[in-house]
Amino acid sequence: MRAMGIDPGTAICGFGVVDAMGSRLKPVTYGTVQTTPEYTDAERLVMLYDGLNELYDKYKPDVIGVEQLFFNRNVTTAITVGQARGIILLTAQQAHIPILEFSPLQVKQGVTGYGRATKEQVIDMTMRLLGIREKIKPDDAADALAMAIYTIYSRHSLSLKRTVQL
Amino acid sequence: MRAMGIDPGTAICGFGVVDAMGSRLKPVTYGTVQTTPEYTDAERLVMLYDGLNELYDKYKPDVIGVEQLFFNRNVTTAITVGQARGIILLTAQQAHIPILEFSPLQVKQGVTGYGRATKEQVIDMTMRLLGIREKIKPDDAADALAMAIYTIYSRHSLSLKRTVQL
Repeated sequence: MRAMGIDPGTAICGFGVVDAMGSRLKPVTYGTVQTTPEYTDAERLVMLYDGLNELYDKYKPDVIGVEQLFFNRNVTTAITVGQARGIILLTAQQAHIPILEFSPLQVKQGVTGYGRATKEQVIDMTMRLLGIREKIKPDDAADALAMAIYTIYSRHSLSLKRTVQL
Repeated sequence: MRAMGIDPGTAICGFGVVDAMGSRLKPVTYGTVQTTPEYTDAERLVMLYDGLNELYDKYKPDVIGVEQLFFNRNVTTAITVGQARGIILLTAQQAHIPILEFSPLQVKQGVTGYGRATKEQVIDMTMRLLGIREKIKPDDAADALAMAIYTIYSRHSLSLKRTVQL
């Protein structure tokens, strides 16, 4: 199974693609779709739309993981993140790729086993799990990889749960 | 000139199309693109995407007016409104229709001449300016028509300003 994690943002949208082969995880690619403020919001959203579609075409993820609505940040950020998040949900749905949503806490807990892990600890564990030695840059890409890992974990545990229910 | 005002929302997205012929305003159409909670957010955004594109194809607006970022409501609303707003900006840009953004205060002030007008006074003046006798329903469509009127006004005053600058 191949999962793509996406960390929403208009200026910087992080992505990370991870393959699961049995219990092993293999990083496929990671990076960011970035746009600069010389463009209008609308133009930047079109670039994000096109950038995401290119990534889906190229890497053909089986499932996409994205952060759930969050509630603690400021409203201006929420609107611009919401706009980018809208484009992510739209493109994934148009490409018929299932979308799973997780809270930041779920990802942190799932990847490190510890709900109070720092951002650095999450990144460190993400690198270990994927066998990546160089520091992942920027953080948005590392967050997206952590999301991809957790998306795979959640899929596995979902299948387990289903097996038990039968 | 034909302006379309759009009032963003995932559940109910209001739209209103107004023609300007000299100093006269003529309502063309108004209504809402609505989706129900039995669909996922992603599915609803695809419906909004398709619905807006149908409206652009059918009514071919020269310009689209949409509310600027606002700062006073709660963060959860901001995210879902942001998601819908992202789809509006994206589709307008993809259709190469210029987008103007105005604050709720600008629209209220511009349509009624009074910045402290109530929502009812704005709707009442919108109906008068457009010669609409039946109460416009729902409010989201009325808001969108008011936005369309103000978009036309702003375009006129922009042209005037440019003439003065020459």
